[in-house]
Amino acid sequence: MHVPLALNPEYLAPEVTPAEVAAEQANVTFWHEKLHAGTGPGADFTGWLEPDQILTPAELDRLIATADRLRRECECLVVVGIGGSYLGARAAIEALAEPDAPPVLYAGQNLSASYHQRLLQSLAGRPYALNVISKSGTTTEPAVAFRILRQHLESSAGKEIARQRIVATTDQQKGALRSLATQEGYETFVVPDDVGGRFSVLSAVGLLPIAFAGIDVRALVAGAAACARACREPQVERNPAYYYAVARNRLYRKGYAVELLSSFEPRLQLLAEWWKQLFGESEGKQQMGLFPASAAFTTDLHSLGQYLQQGRRLLIETFLQVAEGEPAVVVPAEAENADGLNFLAGQGLTTINREAYRATALAHREGGVPNQTLTLERLDAFALGALFYFFEKACALSGYLLGVNPFDQPGVEAYKGHMFALLGKPGFEEQTTALRARLADAGPAPEVRFP
Amino acid sequence: MHVPLALNPEYLAPEVTPAEVAAEQANVTFWHEKLHAGTGPGADFTGWLEPDQILTPAELDRLIATADRLRRECECLVVVGIGGSYLGARAAIEALAEPDAPPVLYAGQNLSASYHQRLLQSLAGRPYALNVISKSGTTTEPAVAFRILRQHLESSAGKEIARQRIVATTDQQKGALRSLATQEGYETFVVPDDVGGRFSVLSAVGLLPIAFAGIDVRALVAGAAACARACREPQVERNPAYYYAVARNRLYRKGYAVELLSSFEPRLQLLAEWWKQLFGESEGKQQMGLFPASAAFTTDLHSLGQYLQQGRRLLIETFLQVAEGEPAVVVPAEAENADGLNFLAGQGLTTINREAYRATALAHREGGVPNQTLTLERLDAFALGALFYFFEKACALSGYLLGVNPFDQPGVEAYKGHMFALLGKPGFEEQTTALRARLADAGPAPEVRFP
Repeated sequence: MHVPLALNPEYLAPEVTPAEVAAEQANVTFWHEKLHAGTGPGADFTGWLEPDQILTPAELDRLIATADRLRRECECLVVVGIGGSYLGARAAIEALAEPDAPPVLYAGQNLSASYHQRLLQSLAGRPYALNVISKSGTTTEPAVAFRILRQHLESSAGKEIARQRIVATTDQQKGALRSLATQEGYETFVVPDDVGGRFSVLSAVGLLPIAFAGIDVRALVAGAAACARACREPQVERNPAYYYAVARNRLYRKGYAVELLSSFEPRLQLLAEWWKQLFGESEGKQQMGLFPASAAFTTDLHSLGQYLQQGRRLLIETFLQVAEGEPAVVVPAEAENADGLNFLAGQGLTTINREAYRATALAHREGGVPNQTLTLERLDAFALGALFYFFEKACALSGYLLGVNPFDQPGVEAYKGHMFALLGKPGFEEQTTALRARLADAGPAPEVRFP
Repeated sequence: MHVPLALNPEYLAPEVTPAEVAAEQANVTFWHEKLHAGTGPGADFTGWLEPDQILTPAELDRLIATADRLRRECECLVVVGIGGSYLGARAAIEALAEPDAPPVLYAGQNLSASYHQRLLQSLAGRPYALNVISKSGTTTEPAVAFRILRQHLESSAGKEIARQRIVATTDQQKGALRSLATQEGYETFVVPDDVGGRFSVLSAVGLLPIAFAGIDVRALVAGAAACARACREPQVERNPAYYYAVARNRLYRKGYAVELLSSFEPRLQLLAEWWKQLFGESEGKQQMGLFPASAAFTTDLHSLGQYLQQGRRLLIETFLQVAEGEPAVVVPAEAENADGLNFLAGQGLTTINREAYRATALAHREGGVPNQTLTLERLDAFALGALFYFFEKACALSGYLLGVNPFDQPGVEAYKGHMFALLGKPGFEEQTTALRARLADAGPAPEVRFP
């Protein structure tokens, strides 16, 4: 099946040329084969490779039926999750949900009291469903938020109704949330063992909230599966995901430090957040990796634009474009033409926005920012599914080319250890004592203040 | 008057020590004096230095009265502006507006057809006001959006009512928007000549939308003015704005390339966007400057956290903390304690969030990210005004220390020239011909596609 995306690498040259990318073929083929044979680092976490096999057809049917039921019974869905249990679904919903779709709200993706207080206020008197997503059930943010929301829902809707409106997406067998769900009789879906959080958008983790928002999750999975089949091709000139991976690696080796994912379509802004986790968490280790950042144009051309054009030359840029299917909003003519814009009268915003993109890609090229453009033929569920997979596959290869395990995240525990110690979590007594002593030894913080 | 913010530089060491910052004093004093004497680069754009003199008392009274009138007559306000005519107001409104405040919507901050179509749909049947903000009136994005919205408002409310609901913030004398406002009889406010866009939040540019949202703009200006008085102190150990400026410059000179503004409070996320423009546009020139990025924690600890802890060591970090005044949202106890969180039962989210911050600052320090913390005593209009000024003053000094003119933006025209050429704007005929020929010569884009 046709994969509705293409990569334009023209403005990568002269820093990276097609010949240079082609010359990496042996390396690409080597890692491609290891990835598919399951013999590369982190091979236990490559279940995402076959996106249409993550859920069985029966499970997908049940998931869609559950989403439909919740949508009939409730006005909105609160998704309780963080990181990979949050970003993929939110990215898809922001990109694709219709304005009149039932709202999906988020909890436990931060620890802000003011955020959660406002959320609770906005839920007052509304029938809502809860989808709590956590493999272990003990990740602090979602676990805390779930305690608060479960109590809120039980006290507002009653324990029996709450039971029907809570769906847990968690480990198949073990863990705190699995136990609780069994005990309470919640409907459940599975966080697969072989799919890491940042690769989980096409599992039940992402699909249930996406389905609730009225998006065609079968088309999403089909698009990803079509891209997966196309991505079995190891030749870089026939596999834009691999081309992208090779190009960004070569730019990294040449000293570039930051990759900017830029889009002219605000609906894709959350996708950039998902992309940041995917690449940042997969590659940012052993003191390596491009720092992933994003820009929302043309908004940010009027804020970051100066830096991008003339600041320190450490940036590469990937534009994410949508070719067609945008609505027609036309610039009206005005008799007086005080603003001098009559040359645009009758033009659609989509055309103007596209020329702004073409102008920006060229200007950034001229300013010394090597850039490439990934174009979606249209923004629908099939194309977005393909795009998710495109980046996942590119990321896996890119991590291997960089020389890291793209599927682990050894550094994310560092702050958690300190946090548990500071909060006095049972089992952390030694760290608590040591950390408190250390902070006490340091004395009061040496603040700089106005007199 | 007490300025309710303080800087904790503890975790900048060993890369930057207090002695090292103090050793820059002569340099700081030199540029401080030039800034205040109006003898440094860009001295024509330092009107922001005295935030309580940007508007006269009578103008501020009129602005507040206008905001009150619009709030009585309308359900919401649409702000039409981009860059500095957008980010400051939005940052303040997201930080401070109450959940039941009249909504402020935004237009002309991008060129997305889908965004503007949804905006128009959401305005159907609602009485709304328009504040169009543009010094020239010809900046493409707001000018295009204003054409569309003005026509929409006139046809939905009638020309006479529309006239009363449109307020133009523009040049005092000249320009397309000034002429139109005079001709149509719109109420107007002034974009000062001596205050650049990114420094304009405390002028009518920012204050009118902020006042519409029910925020105390007198307190905002008073906080800025208090900070301005305190910032007349050139000694770095008594001026945290200068300390911050010196520290980030020294880190830049030592090879750090990206500054991350991190907050644990989602209401401050848009402030980071304002900050990015302020520093990115002021310093990102002549191939120099820290690239400004931001993180929203703890959300992004579960996405960027791995990179921050163990990725390429090019990052410095500034935490923005709020000390008190957050609402009480408490973790409930649970008899079964399946999630093991009973050690947190009875604790407020605010406490847990604060320990997450302390843990993160320490973990990032240990991971090799020099970081400092700017703490607001509370998040209110006075403190936010002080914070805006803190960053403005720090930015001016920081740009001078870097060796650039912090008040110009020579690079932002690059994409505009290409865009006007591609769109066939009158006066750009030569560029249009040259650019079209050039793009045609290059042939069709050499895309990489799946077969």
